[in-house]
Amino acid sequence: MDYGKVIQNIYEDLKSCWGKGKVADYIPALAKVDPRQYGIAIETLDGQSFQVGDAEVCFSIQSISKVFSLAMVTRHMGDQIWKYVGREPSGNPFNSLVQLEYEQGIPRNPFINAGALVVTDRLMTLYDHPKDAILEFVRSICGNDDIYYDKNIARSERTHADRNMALGYLMKSFGNMENDIEAVIDVYCHQCAIAMSCRDLSKAFLFLANHGLNPINQEQILSVSQAKRLGALMLTCGFYDESGDFAFRAGLPGKSGVGGGVAAYIPGNLAITVWSPELNRHGNSYIGMETLEHFTTDISNSIF
Amino acid sequence: MDYGKVIQNIYEDLKSCWGKGKVADYIPALAKVDPRQYGIAIETLDGQSFQVGDAEVCFSIQSISKVFSLAMVTRHMGDQIWKYVGREPSGNPFNSLVQLEYEQGIPRNPFINAGALVVTDRLMTLYDHPKDAILEFVRSICGNDDIYYDKNIARSERTHADRNMALGYLMKSFGNMENDIEAVIDVYCHQCAIAMSCRDLSKAFLFLANHGLNPINQEQILSVSQAKRLGALMLTCGFYDESGDFAFRAGLPGKSGVGGGVAAYIPGNLAITVWSPELNRHGNSYIGMETLEHFTTDISNSIF
Amino acid sequence: MDYGKVIQNIYEDLKSCWGKGKVADYIPALAKVDPRQYGIAIETLDGQSFQVGDAEVCFSIQSISKVFSLAMVTRHMGDQIWKYVGREPSGNPFNSLVQLEYEQGIPRNPFINAGALVVTDRLMTLYDHPKDAILEFVRSICGNDDIYYDKNIARSERTHADRNMALGYLMKSFGNMENDIEAVIDVYCHQCAIAMSCRDLSKAFLFLANHGLNPINQEQILSVSQAKRLGALMLTCGFYDESGDFAFRAGLPGKSGVGGGVAAYIPGNLAITVWSPELNRHGNSYIGMETLEHFTTDISNSIF
Amino acid sequence: MDYGKVIQNIYEDLKSCWGKGKVADYIPALAKVDPRQYGIAIETLDGQSFQVGDAEVCFSIQSISKVFSLAMVTRHMGDQIWKYVGREPSGNPFNSLVQLEYEQGIPRNPFINAGALVVTDRLMTLYDHPKDAILEFVRSICGNDDIYYDKNIARSERTHADRNMALGYLMKSFGNMENDIEAVIDVYCHQCAIAMSCRDLSKAFLFLANHGLNPINQEQILSVSQAKRLGALMLTCGFYDESGDFAFRAGLPGKSGVGGGVAAYIPGNLAITVWSPELNRHGNSYIGMETLEHFTTDISNSIF
Repeated sequence: MDYGKVIQNIYEDLKSCWGKGKVADYIPALAKVDPRQYGIAIETLDGQSFQVGDAEVCFSIQSISKVFSLAMVTRHMGDQIWKYVGREPSGNPFNSLVQLEYEQGIPRNPFINAGALVVTDRLMTLYDHPKDAILEFVRSICGNDDIYYDKNIARSERTHADRNMALGYLMKSFGNMENDIEAVIDVYCHQCAIAMSCRDLSKAFLFLANHGLNPINQEQILSVSQAKRLGALMLTCGFYDESGDFAFRAGLPGKSGVGGGVAAYIPGNLAITVWSPELNRHGNSYIGMETLEHFTTDISNSIF
Repeated sequence: MDYGKVIQNIYEDLKSCWGKGKVADYIPALAKVDPRQYGIAIETLDGQSFQVGDAEVCFSIQSISKVFSLAMVTRHMGDQIWKYVGREPSGNPFNSLVQLEYEQGIPRNPFINAGALVVTDRLMTLYDHPKDAILEFVRSICGNDDIYYDKNIARSERTHADRNMALGYLMKSFGNMENDIEAVIDVYCHQCAIAMSCRDLSKAFLFLANHGLNPINQEQILSVSQAKRLGALMLTCGFYDESGDFAFRAGLPGKSGVGGGVAAYIPGNLAITVWSPELNRHGNSYIGMETLEHFTTDISNSIF
Repeated sequence: MDYGKVIQNIYEDLKSCWGKGKVADYIPALAKVDPRQYGIAIETLDGQSFQVGDAEVCFSIQSISKVFSLAMVTRHMGDQIWKYVGREPSGNPFNSLVQLEYEQGIPRNPFINAGALVVTDRLMTLYDHPKDAILEFVRSICGNDDIYYDKNIARSERTHADRNMALGYLMKSFGNMENDIEAVIDVYCHQCAIAMSCRDLSKAFLFLANHGLNPINQEQILSVSQAKRLGALMLTCGFYDESGDFAFRAGLPGKSGVGGGVAAYIPGNLAITVWSPELNRHGNSYIGMETLEHFTTDISNSIF
Repeated sequence: MDYGKVIQNIYEDLKSCWGKGKVADYIPALAKVDPRQYGIAIETLDGQSFQVGDAEVCFSIQSISKVFSLAMVTRHMGDQIWKYVGREPSGNPFNSLVQLEYEQGIPRNPFINAGALVVTDRLMTLYDHPKDAILEFVRSICGNDDIYYDKNIARSERTHADRNMALGYLMKSFGNMENDIEAVIDVYCHQCAIAMSCRDLSKAFLFLANHGLNPINQEQILSVSQAKRLGALMLTCGFYDESGDFAFRAGLPGKSGVGGGVAAYIPGNLAITVWSPELNRHGNSYIGMETLEHFTTDISNSIF
């Protein structure tokens, strides 16, 4: 199948959608991004590579980083991590603090902010230099040593982290955070500020499509079963309060970030990343989500 | 692959689990069921059929009926149904009324009770004799005209329906119920009281495994895309507050009922139903959920 | 003190406020009331009587009736009623169903709808003909046999009672309602539809100002301590989500209704009722609340 | 009336209640207090003074300090403070974070922790040395320069303040906290750690009983209307989730603390403080609440 042509067509169709979403404005550094950008990159397990549009422009991966930190922690702790965080979809955003209180400080899943903070807290217990470790891990899985923390974004993030501080302290009050909350938030703001391109991200997601084995360096990052389970988590919880709807419409495991990136994959086949900064009302890239839905529809039709 | 042997082994392993769960006791008629029953039935798309244990004993399908009513409504209304009910996992049971109030009477998905009542309300608008229509549909998809309403269960259900009455009136207060609430509850209590065996249910789920086309009578019940989407809904919302966890551990689309039945399928391959009346703390069959997890593990190992 | 002059001045000051509130529109029969009406009536324990404006026009007392039904039940059951309903302010309206669910079907206080339904349910268990009994009680305490149920309002109320039906069934599901929910709602819709004038209501509240003893017929309706406690309830819970604020600004025990009536009293001194149909955003009469605040300010200044 | 005899009798009756409550254990320093202590002190506006039991033993006033900080802020800001915090009872403890989120960072009233933090934040904006200012204020109103911060309690408090940190950051995320959260919490932990005796506290509450004028030094601390309004707040919100119940049973404005102190007053008459460390399930002194209810009953009987 000619994926290059498929994404080229989708790109032509959807680039007219600029203006339907809204760039994230909760931190100044993100608000300044030029909204009229759109890139798609595919990497296949059999070594093909396709790009269209702004596929090599670096952007802030934001919550997509939660997949990487969770993979790092899972590799070390295995199922022990599930003592600290659940695996159920979270209902809706309005509930974040309610549920955390009701469920005694155990976040519903590792992809809501509270859950990601728990994962980062674990990382800090596991690594002496967690910020270095995260960057090294991400560089290694996509084979690009130029991946970096956008310090400007990290700083802006840090000065607007009151809500995350509140989540951290609330969990600490329930005994579910081990490290200093300020320090956890600092690491978390850095991981969110990792800058990568669509192409980098698709490479970084290939090990998930390949059942845990990184095809780039032949390292078994996760066991087959761990990879499959991380996929189920992305499928059910990867897109905020649009997860169920996206599973319904596209059925791909993936993860989005408020920087406008969406990374997803088809197990045994390929990884695909889309980036376009304008977000829909759920906080997912407007054009990104549309792109993936079109992509699976086009692919499906060629299968059945 | 010898599915008969696989389920025979699982059956031997797990029957010792009797006593770890608890039979549903919210209605007297269900509480009287003998807990020490356990059956497994598989139907494959290529026409094979396997059973072990109590696979031909009829039991109350309860919430599994929500799949059938949704399929019936989807067939008539297509995407119009999603104006009345959402497609997101519901968070947790404690939220049922909260979310319904917060989201102005639109239930999160068609598999929580509020959502199923909305679907039944739609059915009543579509059919003059909704109880007859439901029974006819279920009989037709599994090719067994002996399927019946257990009137004793339906009656017991009806006299313990205060919570569902509350949900119905709350939605009516938001304008999201068209028919008389007492009448909706009566139909709903009947659909829950349908009596079927594991074997019947596996046959009834085959059209889902077969992308909407019923292999028994060659009828296209749902379009390919509707069937795929119904599967995504079952995957993300089919097992109450254990949906995410089950997707994580087993990854099968399916639906459970408090009668102890669990029906699931592998797209393009087979349907499998397990029944054992004792429930875990999430309201899903204890042995049923264990069985399916063992089953997917055994199958996966033979694939990778 | 010349209360007649005090209320005359307030009336002149505030009648220009027409248009600042909004007539209740949740039932058609109430929405049709002419908004530009305003009456004040005072009855003192030493037998004086003052009126200004539309003080003798009958209006729908709505939730003010909750005081009467609670007094009737308290007289029979004493403290037993507090097994069925609490005495704490309710937080905010958004919580009604949440709290009811969280607190297992026990409403927070008898002045929120759920609590009033519980009181009416008790009334129905105590009286063979509850509707007759309520009307007789109200007629007797204010000495006016012309008080009547506005059947038009009662009927309109009944056809818009879905939310109250939901509350009733939810409490029934927790075992906190004894009688048929439809029947409870019917009685409740009638008590809300009692038609009285400001003058009637002030007379009807005199027994509360007089520590339980009705000065009109010398009947001890409540014990001194029961009357004092009913006053504390009105002070803390009598004005929906504006109760704390009103206690803060005016400090009077009282009860409002969405018909635009507000009845209050100064213990050992007088009862005062104001009526003006336009409501503020909390559902209390805009002009009524302003009137009472002005009144207590004017009175206080003459005391200190 | 011989208040000395009244409290002596109550003391004899109730001291047998030791063991029915439970000493606060959320911070180690409080958990170590000897539970078998019980004191009562009355100060009247006409200059009489009565004590019984441990009325001169210093204890940690905890939340009673919220009255002092609110009085200080009210004196400077008047009604401006109500832009930052509401005046409605809070519903129940479970709601604290929910309501704060739902109501966009504006706490329901100044006596729940979130509200008290807002008041302390205002104090910090008003005073260069807020800790000195608070101590000076309290010393001045009760005429005792020995009042001090129990540094041991303050420190213990500070190391167990995660929940309060969470509340602070959550409000900051809504823009309702101006100062550094760590600093606010530090001041707040100090004000809670003020050590005073029943006798001190009764003197300190006299200005409230005296309509804002301190009878000790003739200073007008609050205006008549401010004092009356602070009283209404204490009446409706002074005793956590037992406020409505206590208003119902005793009808006194007052404030409790988890150190086991309860300070209350009868306007125009007297201030009364009770201390006994064991708490009931609402977090109020078990014996303290019983004492005040007995006291008002005994007093009432002598009035009617």
